[in-house]
Amino acid sequence: MSEKIKPSKKIKPQTLKGFRDFLPAPMLVRERLMQTAREVYRSFGFTPIDTPALEYSEILLGKGGDETDKQLFRFQDQGDRDVAMRFDLTIPFARYAAAHLQELGTPFRRYHIGTVWRAEKPQKGRYREFVQCDFDTIGTKANAADIETLMVIHELLTRIGFDRFTIRVNNRMVLNGLLNRLGATDRAVAILRALDKLLKLGRDAVVAEMTQQAGVSAAQADEILRFAELKGDADSLLTEAERFVAGDAAGEEGIARLRELVSVCAAAGIPAERLAIDLSIARGLDYYTGTIYETFLGDLPGIGSVCSGGRYDNLAELFTSQPLPGVGASLGLDRLLAAMEELGFVDQIPSPAHVLIVVMSERLLTQYFRLARDLRAAGLAVEVFADNKPLGKQLQYADRKRIPWAVIAGDEEADRGRWQLKNLSSGEQRELATSELAGEILAGTRIAD
Amino acid sequence: MSEKIKPSKKIKPQTLKGFRDFLPAPMLVRERLMQTAREVYRSFGFTPIDTPALEYSEILLGKGGDETDKQLFRFQDQGDRDVAMRFDLTIPFARYAAAHLQELGTPFRRYHIGTVWRAEKPQKGRYREFVQCDFDTIGTKANAADIETLMVIHELLTRIGFDRFTIRVNNRMVLNGLLNRLGATDRAVAILRALDKLLKLGRDAVVAEMTQQAGVSAAQADEILRFAELKGDADSLLTEAERFVAGDAAGEEGIARLRELVSVCAAAGIPAERLAIDLSIARGLDYYTGTIYETFLGDLPGIGSVCSGGRYDNLAELFTSQPLPGVGASLGLDRLLAAMEELGFVDQIPSPAHVLIVVMSERLLTQYFRLARDLRAAGLAVEVFADNKPLGKQLQYADRKRIPWAVIAGDEEADRGRWQLKNLSSGEQRELATSELAGEILAGTRIAD
Repeated sequence: MSEKIKPSKKIKPQTLKGFRDFLPAPMLVRERLMQTAREVYRSFGFTPIDTPALEYSEILLGKGGDETDKQLFRFQDQGDRDVAMRFDLTIPFARYAAAHLQELGTPFRRYHIGTVWRAEKPQKGRYREFVQCDFDTIGTKANAADIETLMVIHELLTRIGFDRFTIRVNNRMVLNGLLNRLGATDRAVAILRALDKLLKLGRDAVVAEMTQQAGVSAAQADEILRFAELKGDADSLLTEAERFVAGDAAGEEGIARLRELVSVCAAAGIPAERLAIDLSIARGLDYYTGTIYETFLGDLPGIGSVCSGGRYDNLAELFTSQPLPGVGASLGLDRLLAAMEELGFVDQIPSPAHVLIVVMSERLLTQYFRLARDLRAAGLAVEVFADNKPLGKQLQYADRKRIPWAVIAGDEEADRGRWQLKNLSSGEQRELATSELAGEILAGTRIAD
Repeated sequence: MSEKIKPSKKIKPQTLKGFRDFLPAPMLVRERLMQTAREVYRSFGFTPIDTPALEYSEILLGKGGDETDKQLFRFQDQGDRDVAMRFDLTIPFARYAAAHLQELGTPFRRYHIGTVWRAEKPQKGRYREFVQCDFDTIGTKANAADIETLMVIHELLTRIGFDRFTIRVNNRMVLNGLLNRLGATDRAVAILRALDKLLKLGRDAVVAEMTQQAGVSAAQADEILRFAELKGDADSLLTEAERFVAGDAAGEEGIARLRELVSVCAAAGIPAERLAIDLSIARGLDYYTGTIYETFLGDLPGIGSVCSGGRYDNLAELFTSQPLPGVGASLGLDRLLAAMEELGFVDQIPSPAHVLIVVMSERLLTQYFRLARDLRAAGLAVEVFADNKPLGKQLQYADRKRIPWAVIAGDEEADRGRWQLKNLSSGEQRELATSELAGEILAGTRIAD
């Protein structure tokens, strides 16, 4: 392969299939979402970590199924090491925990906002590079951590600006308890696989699959489905569910943990309509072992869960013999952003600047920069236009960038310390003294966090 | 290669050579640095963008020298595309600008905080994965943009907390003007290569290299060195330098641009001791064409420049025939962090929490979570301990995490709405009512941004 090219031949400025450039407007929203997530995680005492984008392939291949293996960006590096790009933040965290646990101690709560890569077939809303925002509490089995996980999810969605959403919660112990009572624990995988299709295929198809492929009786399938379809407010639903698992210790413990979660969350101020018990959700077949979370937007449930997670028995068993139970969830940043765009929650503003200082005379650069400094000190983002172009061009620029204010002064005005402040949406213009500008602009501007 | 492993055989939880895990304490500092950089960039009207970690290899190979090519993490992807991980943010930005310029318009100012990868030989302070924080203004030749670049660098360092630092500035046009006057423009590369060694090898060795390898006369070498070694305050230095380039238009323009930069910066409040003209710096051989910046810490100059950049004539010539002049710089996040650690500027605090709420009774979970919510609403970061362990263990945990306050209440106290507030550095403890806690803690806590 020859890389030498003639300077005159231009290279096509394309990105790889499934990869994206981020333009300023959506990137500003992305940064705001990530910053909100950081602030929420920190406010609950979660601490940030980071791990490399590249790992030894054996680390990443250890747990993933065949599907994951095929999606790995994997290669030999310069030292002939077999390496791959991380495809999630969970396995790197497991390796990290095993490597540093001595130093970190338990319980340990971390968040990790990072890019991951999967060579999936690109499709609408699916990319080969995306950001995950995970948080986990490890080293404890206490239900307090499960309850707090739900509170973090609630706070995330609320702080991002959502009002109508539901966090659906289940506990795998309850379903396990029922299967145990039915003597069907050995067929759990096939049963759960069928159950997962309930929404898509409907009751009859699921019963058929359970009896034909999972080898349970029609009566058993019916019982499982009556259980999964229990509806109602959390208290009465749990009371009914308890009958299905009566006598099974794990099942009863699952019910008790859900009950405590519901009552503590209610008492701590989480509105009842935002929390729903849903006994049908399982989230994959064998990873989660306790509480499970999925979060749906009231205005856009079809987009799927925007924040999901659960409790697991042992995070890092591939790397250490020390058992590490934990609970956590992951905010689906890209899915959330797509939802916000679809719902019109996102102003497409391509500049963070509140004010453009128009350059009317190169002689005045000092005055322009001084004014910019003073306005910044007052908390405003200020752009001094980079060229001495005609006024109309500069105002057009501000308009295109959705900058709300322009400050204009030529030699004569600037020498008198006077400025024209122009509101670029209304077109209104007023003459003000230097000392009046910041106050006037601040009074008419919503400053984002 | 077989990836199947027995569950009993543990995988060694190691990272690749030259790659790092970030523990909580340094990661908190890193996040603070990146957030400060974002805030400063935005306050000057720079807008964020992002580009993929992976690009077609031809994009990245287009400009880099042989050295860069060897350092690329490059491979065939699943679709047999020749791809590579980005090794800087400049070439991706050039591709990005060429692809989106129609939509973006000029001037365009962007910042980009992103990870880059180079298969360099790992050594102290050098890693194969590191973060760059670039900012650039493209589509303008105006000196206002060069001046503002310096102001951004100054604001970055100041906001991060540095007081003693110097931004060294030069303009390639001045050096070019001198070489032009000496009739040595065709030997510029060899001359600059020799000149770059001035600090390391000393004057005599540089003169020898210039006469023997760059083919200039002893008198010419002497003149170049007298020029490069000019010292003094900016005004007198520029007056002296002007004599060396008198009659050369480019050289005189370079002097004029530096002079304007110095005077506008002084008038806009940049302290004189933080800005120095240094005619010896060239920063690489052919990329930069105008103003050049390097930034040294007063307390740790040996660590090298922590923020460098310059003006270039044409960012994206590999990808588009539209000329894109610009100016920008890059904050060396990892180098700065290393410097801050060496200077003891960094408290190694592994948790963002201000308060640990001790769990004395599972019955009180609701009260603990309610109190946590109230304290969070007051702006505090609050961790509720995740387990019901003995009090001593929980306080030990807070101590290890450097959490400054603990709030303690058993059944009897909580029922009366009273809490013990313990200052974990002084050991002092007071009983307070729920409503008094937030104010008392806030009064004694420095809340980071």
